Amino acid sequence: MEDIPEDLNYKLQMKEGIVYVYENAEELSQNQPLGLPYPDLETFAIDFSYVLAMIADGPTWAYCHRRLNFLGSKFYLHEMLNEMAELKELKGVPHRDFYNVRKVDTHIHAAACMNQKQLLKFIQTTYKTEADRVVLEKGGQKKTLREVFSSLQKDPYDLTVDSLDVHAGRQTFHRFDKFNSKYNPVGASELREIYLKTDNYIEGEYFARIIKEVARDLEESKYQHAEPRLSIYGRSPKEWDNLARWFIQHKVHSRNLRWIIQVPRIYDIFKSKKIIPTFAKMLENIFLPLFEATVNPQQHKELYVFLKSVTGFDSVDDESKHSNHMFSYKSPKPEEWTAEENPPYSYYLFYMYANIMVLNNLRKERGLGTFQFRPHCGEAGSITHLVSAFLTADNISHGLNLKKSPVLQYLYYLAQVPIAMSPLSNNSLFLEYSKNPLREFLHKGLCVSLSTDDPMQFHYTKEALMEEYAIAAQLWKLSTCDVCEIARNSVLQSGLSHEEKKHFLGVNYLTDGPEGNDIRRTNVAQIRMAFRHETLCNELSLLLDAVKSECPAPTE
Amino acid sequence: MEDIPEDLNYKLQMKEGIVYVYENAEELSQNQPLGLPYPDLETFAIDFSYVLAMIADGPTWAYCHRRLNFLGSKFYLHEMLNEMAELKELKGVPHRDFYNVRKVDTHIHAAACMNQKQLLKFIQTTYKTEADRVVLEKGGQKKTLREVFSSLQKDPYDLTVDSLDVHAGRQTFHRFDKFNSKYNPVGASELREIYLKTDNYIEGEYFARIIKEVARDLEESKYQHAEPRLSIYGRSPKEWDNLARWFIQHKVHSRNLRWIIQVPRIYDIFKSKKIIPTFAKMLENIFLPLFEATVNPQQHKELYVFLKSVTGFDSVDDESKHSNHMFSYKSPKPEEWTAEENPPYSYYLFYMYANIMVLNNLRKERGLGTFQFRPHCGEAGSITHLVSAFLTADNISHGLNLKKSPVLQYLYYLAQVPIAMSPLSNNSLFLEYSKNPLREFLHKGLCVSLSTDDPMQFHYTKEALMEEYAIAAQLWKLSTCDVCEIARNSVLQSGLSHEEKKHFLGVNYLTDGPEGNDIRRTNVAQIRMAFRHETLCNELSLLLDAVKSECPAPTE
Repeated sequence: MEDIPEDLNYKLQMKEGIVYVYENAEELSQNQPLGLPYPDLETFAIDFSYVLAMIADGPTWAYCHRRLNFLGSKFYLHEMLNEMAELKELKGVPHRDFYNVRKVDTHIHAAACMNQKQLLKFIQTTYKTEADRVVLEKGGQKKTLREVFSSLQKDPYDLTVDSLDVHAGRQTFHRFDKFNSKYNPVGASELREIYLKTDNYIEGEYFARIIKEVARDLEESKYQHAEPRLSIYGRSPKEWDNLARWFIQHKVHSRNLRWIIQVPRIYDIFKSKKIIPTFAKMLENIFLPLFEATVNPQQHKELYVFLKSVTGFDSVDDESKHSNHMFSYKSPKPEEWTAEENPPYSYYLFYMYANIMVLNNLRKERGLGTFQFRPHCGEAGSITHLVSAFLTADNISHGLNLKKSPVLQYLYYLAQVPIAMSPLSNNSLFLEYSKNPLREFLHKGLCVSLSTDDPMQFHYTKEALMEEYAIAAQLWKLSTCDVCEIARNSVLQSGLSHEEKKHFLGVNYLTDGPEGNDIRRTNVAQIRMAFRHETLCNELSLLLDAVKSECPAPTE
Repeated sequence: MEDIPEDLNYKLQMKEGIVYVYENAEELSQNQPLGLPYPDLETFAIDFSYVLAMIADGPTWAYCHRRLNFLGSKFYLHEMLNEMAELKELKGVPHRDFYNVRKVDTHIHAAACMNQKQLLKFIQTTYKTEADRVVLEKGGQKKTLREVFSSLQKDPYDLTVDSLDVHAGRQTFHRFDKFNSKYNPVGASELREIYLKTDNYIEGEYFARIIKEVARDLEESKYQHAEPRLSIYGRSPKEWDNLARWFIQHKVHSRNLRWIIQVPRIYDIFKSKKIIPTFAKMLENIFLPLFEATVNPQQHKELYVFLKSVTGFDSVDDESKHSNHMFSYKSPKPEEWTAEENPPYSYYLFYMYANIMVLNNLRKERGLGTFQFRPHCGEAGSITHLVSAFLTADNISHGLNLKKSPVLQYLYYLAQVPIAMSPLSNNSLFLEYSKNPLREFLHKGLCVSLSTDDPMQFHYTKEALMEEYAIAAQLWKLSTCDVCEIARNSVLQSGLSHEEKKHFLGVNYLTDGPEGNDIRRTNVAQIRMAFRHETLCNELSLLLDAVKSECPAPTE
């Protein structure tokens, strides 16, 4: 194991749902935490109301609507005038085309990162070679693979993609519940437990093996990367150590994978099962171990090492579920949240954001890697979700509901908040492909990427990400420059390292506009880059001019 | 070489565009041909006018329109009632799912059967290993691969999919001319000549090698077959011998491929270049060699052997090209067709059909394999094309224009004329994907299959046929039973042998209805088969009843 820094023996304490860091016990007793900024719910709630008021304001709505229309028309003109010139630029680029530009699958769940056929074959192989291995312990009784399948009355040899039944279909449209149950092969939660979990009787071995198969395919393809989500639930503080052990023991690391931790918003389930007493406990289970591994890495070596491969956090669940609680600064503090009811989306987002922010500042001080916050947002449900994410997230997954609010859409454009979109997933769950706003967002200049979400449920071919790109390109008649722009966006928003991004996008990739683009690496035309940059500058300067004319500079 | 039958030394003579067969010189001099039926243009022209009158008849139009609407609604009801029951049937089928049912790519051009990336890699490999090989002779000057690329000012290492420029894009929509020029890699006809032709300086070696790569991929996939089209132009009678030699010399045979000969409708080009004097000469160049190889196989061993792998004929070109000639029984005979102008579509179709029919009867007598007639039809242009094909073809490619004529659509339904559809090709050339009638045709019960047409121009992934199925399944939310029904249709209409069809579809596949379906092989639910069969029987008996009531049986 590599060089691990010394333990600092700082003291940690969660207060009002946020972990506070103290240099020693004395500071803790005097309540003098380390000078990291600690966000507070009140400030967030005020900012939140401010944006809410803004998106409801008529003149603002009309202004943003007009600007967005303008952006769409402007791109249309650009396309008519410059399409052939862009193509000519791309034809002149040696050795680089859509197939060998880097693409990152920016949103994919580890438990569904394989194709349905691949999972089927994997199950059949394990049965062929290790049917008599004990793989499950249920109610104190150990079961071999053979016993599991015999109790399901299934012969794995006869299993098919149809009987496996993990693929989404017409039945899952607007039925997130049915979609979730697709994670159970043959409808059996035992098989999910055996094959798609990290923490089970076989210590997640099968899950690790199948992920490594997926990783090998990506490594062979060379130009494709993925950012799979692994779950931390907040049921118990041991989850992190177990996950880290799984990761290290099975050597799941791959240079084509970067890991994201997804936290399902299921406090209500744990509470009803009396697993946790308050929402604060759930937050503590999720975040305290990360602080501990950061201040005392020697005592948490595995987690410390694992965290080097983790690049961010995701917040996941069915957004269309309604919450009765109206979020405001008067909302109960996490310690006081003892109701059976689930806190609302915004509440979850704020507390994840707050803890990640404190943690990142602490890690920066120690010279350690930091984490992005990349929640699912705007897939369904209230548009207020997009307000919370706008205030807290580095980038989001889905963003479909930006369709419904010109103000938010324009804000996401101005701030260039990256959006990982998955039109095939949406097509099976929430929105028909032809109505998906991806093309429109891309044209207006929002920073969108393409991602698969769940290849097991949504895709047919072995190359899920290519299938996603191919369908978008075909259906929306995207040009090569369009798809390469999407690919570039995916690298930009990903958790790949600065060094990797320099290598994949060009050394100046952080510079705005065409200067930041190395066409020999991205295959995105400089004409396109210049158009995007000028257009964004123009929008920003319009706002700046308006601000100036409203509040004139003090006369001398 | 295998057992080749004896020569019969029959005499052959083309008369009025059709090859006549005579047992000997005497019969020839007495004009007493062998008793094969020889179709004549007059009969065809009369039948043609009859169907034309029918499709223009108001009451017939209304009747067919109503029946088709009824068929659509009936399927919709069937789907709502039986979808889950069909799915349950499929789940109970051991070891068979969409991935391992047989699928035939029923319409694919050999010169575009590879993916753009595959062609690129192949070109780069040949350059790397044999740059100094002479590959082209032009104006008496021999050129090596290096010289060819140097005159194009291209370094193959720097070539990309963009500069190769064989993929269709927005520029090809309603521009068949631009589409055709996509067959020239880097816009250079030299590269088409070197890499995508059978009859060139290197005797078609590169073309054979790349086709064999495609064949190997299909063989590995095991369940996918394809029916690539090779061209015979009718410029010279030697084309057939050259093509057969190419096929045998390079061992292009594969058990996953069946060959179809495509004849481009380009008499006008040959005529304007003074290569042929009359349309009859073109027909003679196309068909006479086939009759010769059939009656005198010993004298045409290679062609005889090659023809065993050929299963049909296709007629190809841009259907949207307008013809000034009004086809009728007064149209000039092929010997008299000396105009610069191209004969119309129907004229081409009749003469191909007539010669294939005579040839098939002759071959049947000799116990040899026969040929299907499978023209491109209804991709664009006049709906009269679909009338000609209805009277002459075994099945057609495209059939989009059936949308425009309820009478023809209903006739194609009643006669269950198979239609190989390529919605991705249409999407790039003639009709947006969302407007493609495939789903509607399938639901009404027309016998449709999915095919790729030109993977080089239209597809992105390595598995073009799977891409075609995946997109159709995603966009139209097809069920597993739907896609398996399409796959079954593709095997049915293909040129695969009776033995193979028995193996892939079930031994009774020729029987109508569920009895003819072996669900363990096709993965098509029996409920679906029964629905299709009952529905068709119902439509047919309605017509029968109407005929009976119109012409009552003579009273006793």
